[in-house]
Amino acid sequence: MYNIIPTQGGVCSSEGFFADGISAGLKSENAKDMAFIYSEDECEIASVFTTNKMYAAPIKHFHLKKNFKTNFVLINSKNANAMTGQAGLADINEILSNVDNVTNPLMSSTGVIGVRLPKEKIIDGIKLFDFSKKNASSAAKAIMTTDTFSKEIAFKVKLDNGSSFSIGAMAKGAGMINPAMATMLCFITTDAKVSKSEMQDILDEVTKTTFNAISVDGDTSTNDTVMLLANAKSEAYDKDAFKDALFKVMHFLALEMVRDGEGATKLVTYKVSGAKNNEEAEIVAKALSDSLLVKTALFGEDPNWGRIASTVGASGVEAYEEKLKISFDNYCVYDKGKLYFDKDMEEKCAIVMQHKKFTISCDLGISNGEFKSYGCDLGHEYVKINADYRT
Amino acid sequence: MYNIIPTQGGVCSSEGFFADGISAGLKSENAKDMAFIYSEDECEIASVFTTNKMYAAPIKHFHLKKNFKTNFVLINSKNANAMTGQAGLADINEILSNVDNVTNPLMSSTGVIGVRLPKEKIIDGIKLFDFSKKNASSAAKAIMTTDTFSKEIAFKVKLDNGSSFSIGAMAKGAGMINPAMATMLCFITTDAKVSKSEMQDILDEVTKTTFNAISVDGDTSTNDTVMLLANAKSEAYDKDAFKDALFKVMHFLALEMVRDGEGATKLVTYKVSGAKNNEEAEIVAKALSDSLLVKTALFGEDPNWGRIASTVGASGVEAYEEKLKISFDNYCVYDKGKLYFDKDMEEKCAIVMQHKKFTISCDLGISNGEFKSYGCDLGHEYVKINADYRT
Repeated sequence: MYNIIPTQGGVCSSEGFFADGISAGLKSENAKDMAFIYSEDECEIASVFTTNKMYAAPIKHFHLKKNFKTNFVLINSKNANAMTGQAGLADINEILSNVDNVTNPLMSSTGVIGVRLPKEKIIDGIKLFDFSKKNASSAAKAIMTTDTFSKEIAFKVKLDNGSSFSIGAMAKGAGMINPAMATMLCFITTDAKVSKSEMQDILDEVTKTTFNAISVDGDTSTNDTVMLLANAKSEAYDKDAFKDALFKVMHFLALEMVRDGEGATKLVTYKVSGAKNNEEAEIVAKALSDSLLVKTALFGEDPNWGRIASTVGASGVEAYEEKLKISFDNYCVYDKGKLYFDKDMEEKCAIVMQHKKFTISCDLGISNGEFKSYGCDLGHEYVKINADYRT
Repeated sequence: MYNIIPTQGGVCSSEGFFADGISAGLKSENAKDMAFIYSEDECEIASVFTTNKMYAAPIKHFHLKKNFKTNFVLINSKNANAMTGQAGLADINEILSNVDNVTNPLMSSTGVIGVRLPKEKIIDGIKLFDFSKKNASSAAKAIMTTDTFSKEIAFKVKLDNGSSFSIGAMAKGAGMINPAMATMLCFITTDAKVSKSEMQDILDEVTKTTFNAISVDGDTSTNDTVMLLANAKSEAYDKDAFKDALFKVMHFLALEMVRDGEGATKLVTYKVSGAKNNEEAEIVAKALSDSLLVKTALFGEDPNWGRIASTVGASGVEAYEEKLKISFDNYCVYDKGKLYFDKDMEEKCAIVMQHKKFTISCDLGISNGEFKSYGCDLGHEYVKINADYRT
């Protein structure tokens, strides 16, 4: 057995990791816009990247390297370095050549697509990095774009044999968040002694039910990155404990991203059960968290269960009007053809929807397939943020 | 050869068709909310219905009949009669039993899901119907929901042999409009002498590039219906002329629906070319017209071409950064890796985007696949309309 205990320090919670955020003048008003993660020892890397065919230059740069370890990641916000072709790739190489005493340095970017990086500003910014800093929360702030709060977490894992390791992470949302990974960056550090291949398998598995189960707007960006760096410094490891702790880290950050979805005021869990199989349950859960009509009904705090039924029906999976059951938290509004949606029930459901967090459950009544997705409402703020994003 | 000439009269433009809209008290303030289409002679029917598994009672009612002709359709707005089970079906039968002297009467509904029809009001409303009325525009008004204007059109087709026939139609949008048919009802009448099977083939084909090429919000409703009624009264027919005229009718109404998309201020054509094949072009075109980030950029009149590139990349089709070309009307902003998006170009594109109608072109540069889709922007009005729809 093992104990997983919340701790402080984000990406610096693990032994041997350092990080900081600085202002290089990419954002206005001296806001932090550049961060680094540095490890004393070289790290094994596991990663998940966007499925977008127009993946950005930093991801191309990563893929050009083979079987390598690293001890340094440079991250900038405000510019995605996407759709910048060979020039974008050359910019990365030139920028990273200005970082001294690191092995296979990596870069990660988020922001506007189709604009060359402000190379000089970034190179000047590198001079402000101090590899002895453990300012994880400052790094977490520097990678924010439209996020309204920074997102970080860390756990200490105590194993039965007395040894222990840590896992810490930071992430940014907050738009273009989609079940198939999104404009999200997440950097996870650990001093656990885990092998590269095992760490990759676990990361892939945990991604499915965390970052790939959330949606803000159904758009998949060019830059999505989850990177897990392990420097083995603790010498400790246990597979179950590691997986459990990694899930806690990623689940927390995934929900934080949805909670901070652009203009979002509510975090809604879509619990789909009774589907033909898990795959069909996933299709329904994601259709619900992506539906504009469901999202605007959430914003209006209107228990419009008909839109939920319609979205289930439109998702393409096996579903029957006479087998479906729909609930808002514990209030069942529709059960296998029976309507329970009188004035009294409508008021009860409207109260549920005024909460910051609640669950919409759909039991398809066919078999045992199930999946949980997480979404938010869509209101005027989303329109405002995205109509004027570049300006 | 043949001539297709715009004419008046909507669904009553063809000989032997009658229609009217009345107020049965479903909407407030005596607004028209019930319509009928009646034909002196029985009609052959072609139809396309929603792919939503939770299809509404009127569609179930239609499917229970086999190989039948009709001369009467009753249409109500404000209530969709969806998710109402066997009771919803029984309601239709009871309602239609109150219409005298018609053959195989049909019903079509649009509005809120999950509420039983106000049967008594509708039966009282039937008493107001006068089958000698040719008030097509009144019928077109009665079927509106969130539409801000009614939608109808008619053409007279003159054939070389001196004979002629007419095609007229009315439709309603305006939300839940999606490439896979949407909350849209469209009723088309013709006095052409066309066979049932040929008319169905032509309707299916034309639907692909008209109603199935538009998107307002990516949601597919429970009630989508396109119904084409032919009473053969003109004795005239020519296949090419009929197909051409039907395309003109459906193309016009499809674009009217997008133009009247909930809260829409712009009608945008997405012209995709150079894709691996037509199917992949269609996937890209529909991904663009569905993308929330593209739609909000349209609303903000922000020529954010990076979001267009990202949406192409996220759509899953074969696409390459170094082969892609993107234009706003005639202004090319990105061509095979070359950025043409300087301040001057940005201003030019911003001016294009201030227009009510413009085209965004994406040439994938791979092969000859092409498809055109039609979409609108998404602004505050959409949120307002859909957050408070039921109330």
